[in-house]
Amino acid sequence: MNMEKVNSMDFGEFVDVFGNVIERCPLIAAAVWSQRPFFDLEDLEKHFFAFIDALPQSGQEGILRCHPDLAGREQQRGTLTAESQREQSGAGLTSLSAEERQQLEKLNAQYRARFGFPFVLAARLSDRAAVPRELERRLHCQPAQELRTALGEVKKIGHLRLVDLLGADSSRLKLR
Amino acid sequence: MNMEKVNSMDFGEFVDVFGNVIERCPLIAAAVWSQRPFFDLEDLEKHFFAFIDALPQSGQEGILRCHPDLAGREQQRGTLTAESQREQSGAGLTSLSAEERQQLEKLNAQYRARFGFPFVLAARLSDRAAVPRELERRLHCQPAQELRTALGEVKKIGHLRLVDLLGADSSRLKLR
Repeated sequence: MNMEKVNSMDFGEFVDVFGNVIERCPLIAAAVWSQRPFFDLEDLEKHFFAFIDALPQSGQEGILRCHPDLAGREQQRGTLTAESQREQSGAGLTSLSAEERQQLEKLNAQYRARFGFPFVLAARLSDRAAVPRELERRLHCQPAQELRTALGEVKKIGHLRLVDLLGADSSRLKLR
Repeated sequence: MNMEKVNSMDFGEFVDVFGNVIERCPLIAAAVWSQRPFFDLEDLEKHFFAFIDALPQSGQEGILRCHPDLAGREQQRGTLTAESQREQSGAGLTSLSAEERQQLEKLNAQYRARFGFPFVLAARLSDRAAVPRELERRLHCQPAQELRTALGEVKKIGHLRLVDLLGADSSRLKLR
């Protein structure tokens, strides 16, 4: 898909295609559509990220709260979004042992209790062994710093989803 | 459901219950959870509305763009949210004649082309005869005024959904 195609979309089509770039927040894609035309993937992404950055803290936490736990209840119930399912599966999080799953469940609960939002991580840049290590490490961070870290992960996830959607046109772009 | 119950919810439960108070914007419920405890329905609603009012214009338009057309494509495909389905059905919009449906489709398209968001109306406070009349009237409004009108409808819809969720506890509250 090239940018000409993207720029020609009406808002319904745009939200259908880009509505889950930020997990379960089609509102953000629907707002970003106002900023068209977009020059390239980097420009499109800039508008997604600017919207996130401009939200009050409650809204930024809200974005995080729309994410599922890694290897959590939603994965077990099969109610993940297609994108989340692929990402968690690719990281090996859908084939954990009972023991690994229990460990993650415990850590996820501790994290939610401490910060008031779920642990968010770009699973495609991690794997089943690294996830619990990173969760334990971030569990000890300060809340304000952890909010920034978690939003950084939201942006990495969004970047990778945009690259998937826009394909080879954007392969030159680096992760930021 | 009383406020004690609402105030005891973790964010997952809160978003499950209140995630569609603002159509397809669970982010807003997820942000509002930060403001607990809530005193009563009016207080809870105040936080939903304050979040909407604080968004930049692109975000406010984004909320509107998460709404389906009345008697539109999504209704025909059966992909409406449960709340929307009930509201459109209650207003008689699921049993239009082919002619009525075509008329609405044409007006909806004109409205979207003029304002860049779909026509949003609290269907439960209207009916199949009034909807096209109101659509034609609003089609001639100025964009800035129409954005305010449409957000007012989002709030009426949100109010009615909150009343449904919280039940008799809140029956004394008036529409604002």
